[in-house]
Amino acid sequence: MRAAVLFGKQDLRIESVSAMSPEPGEVIVRVAYGGICGSDLSYFHKGRVGDFAVREPMVLGHEVAGTITAVGGGVTSLRPGARVAVNPSRACLRCDYCRAGRSNLCRSMRFLGSAAVSPHVQGGFTEQLMVREDQCVQVPDHFSLRLASCAEPLSVALHAAHQGGDLLGKKVIVSGAGPIGLMCVLTAIKAGASEVHSTDILDAPLITARALGATAVHNAATKANALEVLAEGKGYFDVGFEASGAPQALVSLFRLVRPGGRIVQLGMLPGGDTSVPLNVLQSQELELVGSFRATADFDRAVHALVSGQFDVAPILTGEFPLDCAVEAFQMAGDRTRALKVLIAVSPGLERQGVDMNPRPDS
Amino acid sequence: MRAAVLFGKQDLRIESVSAMSPEPGEVIVRVAYGGICGSDLSYFHKGRVGDFAVREPMVLGHEVAGTITAVGGGVTSLRPGARVAVNPSRACLRCDYCRAGRSNLCRSMRFLGSAAVSPHVQGGFTEQLMVREDQCVQVPDHFSLRLASCAEPLSVALHAAHQGGDLLGKKVIVSGAGPIGLMCVLTAIKAGASEVHSTDILDAPLITARALGATAVHNAATKANALEVLAEGKGYFDVGFEASGAPQALVSLFRLVRPGGRIVQLGMLPGGDTSVPLNVLQSQELELVGSFRATADFDRAVHALVSGQFDVAPILTGEFPLDCAVEAFQMAGDRTRALKVLIAVSPGLERQGVDMNPRPDS
Amino acid sequence: MRAAVLFGKQDLRIESVSAMSPEPGEVIVRVAYGGICGSDLSYFHKGRVGDFAVREPMVLGHEVAGTITAVGGGVTSLRPGARVAVNPSRACLRCDYCRAGRSNLCRSMRFLGSAAVSPHVQGGFTEQLMVREDQCVQVPDHFSLRLASCAEPLSVALHAAHQGGDLLGKKVIVSGAGPIGLMCVLTAIKAGASEVHSTDILDAPLITARALGATAVHNAATKANALEVLAEGKGYFDVGFEASGAPQALVSLFRLVRPGGRIVQLGMLPGGDTSVPLNVLQSQELELVGSFRATADFDRAVHALVSGQFDVAPILTGEFPLDCAVEAFQMAGDRTRALKVLIAVSPGLERQGVDMNPRPDS
Amino acid sequence: MRAAVLFGKQDLRIESVSAMSPEPGEVIVRVAYGGICGSDLSYFHKGRVGDFAVREPMVLGHEVAGTITAVGGGVTSLRPGARVAVNPSRACLRCDYCRAGRSNLCRSMRFLGSAAVSPHVQGGFTEQLMVREDQCVQVPDHFSLRLASCAEPLSVALHAAHQGGDLLGKKVIVSGAGPIGLMCVLTAIKAGASEVHSTDILDAPLITARALGATAVHNAATKANALEVLAEGKGYFDVGFEASGAPQALVSLFRLVRPGGRIVQLGMLPGGDTSVPLNVLQSQELELVGSFRATADFDRAVHALVSGQFDVAPILTGEFPLDCAVEAFQMAGDRTRALKVLIAVSPGLERQGVDMNPRPDS
Repeated sequence: MRAAVLFGKQDLRIESVSAMSPEPGEVIVRVAYGGICGSDLSYFHKGRVGDFAVREPMVLGHEVAGTITAVGGGVTSLRPGARVAVNPSRACLRCDYCRAGRSNLCRSMRFLGSAAVSPHVQGGFTEQLMVREDQCVQVPDHFSLRLASCAEPLSVALHAAHQGGDLLGKKVIVSGAGPIGLMCVLTAIKAGASEVHSTDILDAPLITARALGATAVHNAATKANALEVLAEGKGYFDVGFEASGAPQALVSLFRLVRPGGRIVQLGMLPGGDTSVPLNVLQSQELELVGSFRATADFDRAVHALVSGQFDVAPILTGEFPLDCAVEAFQMAGDRTRALKVLIAVSPGLERQGVDMNPRPDS
Repeated sequence: MRAAVLFGKQDLRIESVSAMSPEPGEVIVRVAYGGICGSDLSYFHKGRVGDFAVREPMVLGHEVAGTITAVGGGVTSLRPGARVAVNPSRACLRCDYCRAGRSNLCRSMRFLGSAAVSPHVQGGFTEQLMVREDQCVQVPDHFSLRLASCAEPLSVALHAAHQGGDLLGKKVIVSGAGPIGLMCVLTAIKAGASEVHSTDILDAPLITARALGATAVHNAATKANALEVLAEGKGYFDVGFEASGAPQALVSLFRLVRPGGRIVQLGMLPGGDTSVPLNVLQSQELELVGSFRATADFDRAVHALVSGQFDVAPILTGEFPLDCAVEAFQMAGDRTRALKVLIAVSPGLERQGVDMNPRPDS
Repeated sequence: MRAAVLFGKQDLRIESVSAMSPEPGEVIVRVAYGGICGSDLSYFHKGRVGDFAVREPMVLGHEVAGTITAVGGGVTSLRPGARVAVNPSRACLRCDYCRAGRSNLCRSMRFLGSAAVSPHVQGGFTEQLMVREDQCVQVPDHFSLRLASCAEPLSVALHAAHQGGDLLGKKVIVSGAGPIGLMCVLTAIKAGASEVHSTDILDAPLITARALGATAVHNAATKANALEVLAEGKGYFDVGFEASGAPQALVSLFRLVRPGGRIVQLGMLPGGDTSVPLNVLQSQELELVGSFRATADFDRAVHALVSGQFDVAPILTGEFPLDCAVEAFQMAGDRTRALKVLIAVSPGLERQGVDMNPRPDS
Repeated sequence: MRAAVLFGKQDLRIESVSAMSPEPGEVIVRVAYGGICGSDLSYFHKGRVGDFAVREPMVLGHEVAGTITAVGGGVTSLRPGARVAVNPSRACLRCDYCRAGRSNLCRSMRFLGSAAVSPHVQGGFTEQLMVREDQCVQVPDHFSLRLASCAEPLSVALHAAHQGGDLLGKKVIVSGAGPIGLMCVLTAIKAGASEVHSTDILDAPLITARALGATAVHNAATKANALEVLAEGKGYFDVGFEASGAPQALVSLFRLVRPGGRIVQLGMLPGGDTSVPLNVLQSQELELVGSFRATADFDRAVHALVSGQFDVAPILTGEFPLDCAVEAFQMAGDRTRALKVLIAVSPGLERQGVDMNPRPDS
């Protein structure tokens, strides 16, 4: 068995890993596709994500789908051959956060491909992956595993949408048009926002934002004037989603979101302090809330994809075989050309002729 | 008639003002007492509050109580002689914010003693004050007008408490032990918090915090270690109220408040940007919300004072006649000696023998 | 000028009414179209709605749109010729409910065509209607006044949706497929519900529900078995909207909505008590909340119609000239043939060639 | 070992039960005191609670405290000798409700002394009780086990308070002054309600309500007039807690709670339908929500008792040794004489001289 293992900054190698047998309550997934996330890119380029440095070889990846090859004792809901999207969050289910319905803040979270704990949690860019039974959500046989690998980033957008509150009839702005930002655009549209604007500092992703249905797109680098107009009168938008991780984008939202509005920070900001006009937050009663990963939204994301309610296919801009993982990471890092890049770990698992654009239930 | 008029930075004079007749729907209040607020101090010391500079002579003050001397046409709920606490917020009642129940964000707010609009809204440190009928909340004849003048700052604390959500059983920390911070301590206790900690950089106000019932007090300047212990394990508190306006106090709350917790910013921060660890807000799903003045909480504050449910008397640390307004401001600015300082505009209105510590209803 | 005046049960006459001049702050609307609501039908058939009996001649109707013909003093936002949807709610803006953002519960509400107060508030099935400036929301010249007359019922559905909470990804059931129920179906779809089921006891309106996008429709009279299946395991749906006013439909929702779910009662139930399994509400922590008219959702409804985000045209099933108002009421009362029936008061105001199906902004 | 076993309606016997050894993850509790709850009384008097009939011998009781006598493998947080309050809810922690923070709605709940599942879950009126480690919350050595046995009913009141929303400054009414209703009174006072009224149809418990701090008490049977006055003008109260389980009390709350207010149903209503004026709920936008047992509030209840923030001692009106369990049940069923009656299963575990009225932290 092979896997894409990070040994340190810029040192990603395809290594052999020994075969596994499932432990009780666990299943072995043969991974078909895995999407490269911004945190994977950070591990690759910097050897770290925020405060968490890679201190030992670690398989990257946490956006994966595949088929079950073996099940451990006591597993009842899955059989070998089942096609599944894998939830990378393995929460303890027992701590106070899990019991309060906030498993994304679990005190003992084990998240795939993460250096937050030691030893690290090995990730999903591997031919075989052992996860707890309940981390797998089955998809129909006819459903694309490429799309299923998008369940995790879509779950992040769905969770952020709930952090943003009831969006029906609201005017929404999303800063950052990377894969997560674009999924936020899709989600806000789906949630009934009356307008959904998308901003970025590059034109390329904004073209996709427009194609996905954004009411308007704004290049904040080259056409800042249009945003200035929307900031007049204390701001045009009811809710802002900050999905770029760029401090200046967040600062801009303080002016674009109206008094009493809400800003959801889901982009990963740089470590350390960020300077923002908090006197405005106070006097305009803005609400700034963090959004981190997802909880039950993973299951909802799978359902939304399978039922065709979200069309994420335009966000998939390339895929590379496992052996070319380094090239995949290089492509994924070039925002002028790429949005979501997949690593085709075991592409033979994808059925021929699967529909990449399932239509909504009718 | 006389009033305390600010002509510019440090230039506060007692001036004669001509007598008024009430317009339709308006009443004339003879002011008995007026409390000096932090924003009054800022006007006095800096000639401005945040972005709002005093550009013309302006009567200061917005925490006032007194008696009605005349009523205009159409006024039905008040008669001359009525004793009232005055709500300094005169919202338009028609804009979208007023209609949405957020009159504190009114697009056309006229707030007593404020340079936010031009011409400025004259304030309450005056022997006569004309306000709209609905700005007056009547208090019983036996009730102290000194205490009634505290309704406005208490309303600010009540509003902030609601911004903080359901506090029953929560662990609460309040940074800043000035009059507003102390009223937040009182309010959190009243709202059923299981613990209420108070922090400041001076010992004097913390002694009052303890007397008002704070579970623990911490001098953040001299005993930072105790706070460090509470920051361990991602933070001890469920809700933090930032009432000091000091950026470093807010930064500290990001570590003291647990993941998923809420921070209410009600202190006025300096203009411009404030640097805070927003990467922590994102990954711990903190909620940072502004709190600005009050809405219906003014009426509730009056009721809470009259019924004796809040004992704010320990916060009143001094009073000066109108002629000594400058001395009053100097005292109010000395946090080692003063908390809330009153200007006794027409102290003869206070009944003899009023109870400064009404007991809760029984 | 003429109007459709109800003199008592079943006694609707077209009467001449004298011409009006606008008072200060008021405008005169020449009504183009008015939709017949369930409460209009109740006034017509029973001479009353719930506890409110018609005790004097009253013009019916509150779902109207038209053009401004004259404006009173002080009116600045509207000019003669402006095309407007009319909000039938004239809230006082001053009482505690208005100030709290709940103007639909205003203590001094004057609602068009209502016998709730005495003298009654005359309604909108009239060639001329005087309303307060802020009751009018302007629509573009090219926009259909037929559609504009649907703003009020749509606002009721939008308000109910907000009472139902965040619907994104939720499974929703709507009981009753009259005009309001159908607008609830549209709204739940728009708000991102993962499934929206519609029930009724007639097939005809369910065909429209299906055409509007309902995931599934159920005739509760003839195919109760399918609903039984959905009630198994303590219920399938997250949120139920009861829009029929039929007690048995509400009872059914107690079994169809899962533990912890929410039921929104917006249909007008018969006067007196209704028997429902409240032991289930208690042990399953159901939430049963009322929904009454609308607040700021009226403006949002107009915007949603103008922008083409809601296609209500399939709900409009007939129209009659003012002279044939009685026939219009008879048709509107026949649920096998009619959904929303319009009275064409001054149909000449409708522009030729207006688009009854504006496309969403693109 | 002995236990109070119900064999059927009115057939409660003290039986010998064989000694247990703790299984992995479990502990054995030697029960000191157990409180008799309304559901215990229903089992005793009717052989059933709602739909759940006793079909096999079942130990009653779920409000218990005692000391750990043995711990199973893997238990780390408790040792023999630890004094604990026992949470009767053993939720699965894995189902969708548990994961969503609503473990009280767990699909596989095992609740002590409950006939809801088959075989029944044996209860706590027994000298030895095996529970999962996390069902035990340790109390200090000096703390009364009598008071600790009150944690469960207090948790029910705390949970109901949260279902009622932010109570600070609200006017609250509690119908029913049994042990749960009285704990609701205590909780509403603690949560900062501006007024807390208590109603019952007997004077005796209302005397206790007054002693616990209720603002006013009303005998709904003999002094209905006073309640009528409070119902005028659409109702005086912001929030009502229905803790009696009497349909007529709930009906009364529909009139006593103001438009837009909330009613929390926590009393167990009779099986079948209850008739209530739901047309009022709709037109006044009342919210009627169920409250069922508790979630994390159990831990908070223990903390609140230990810290002395709630003084429940006045609610404890009698105790009987295990051998006199039948007499205990008879006493508990007599509302003119009893509130909470304890069964002293192993009273020797209570330390001598424990303080039944711990003072709040100071």
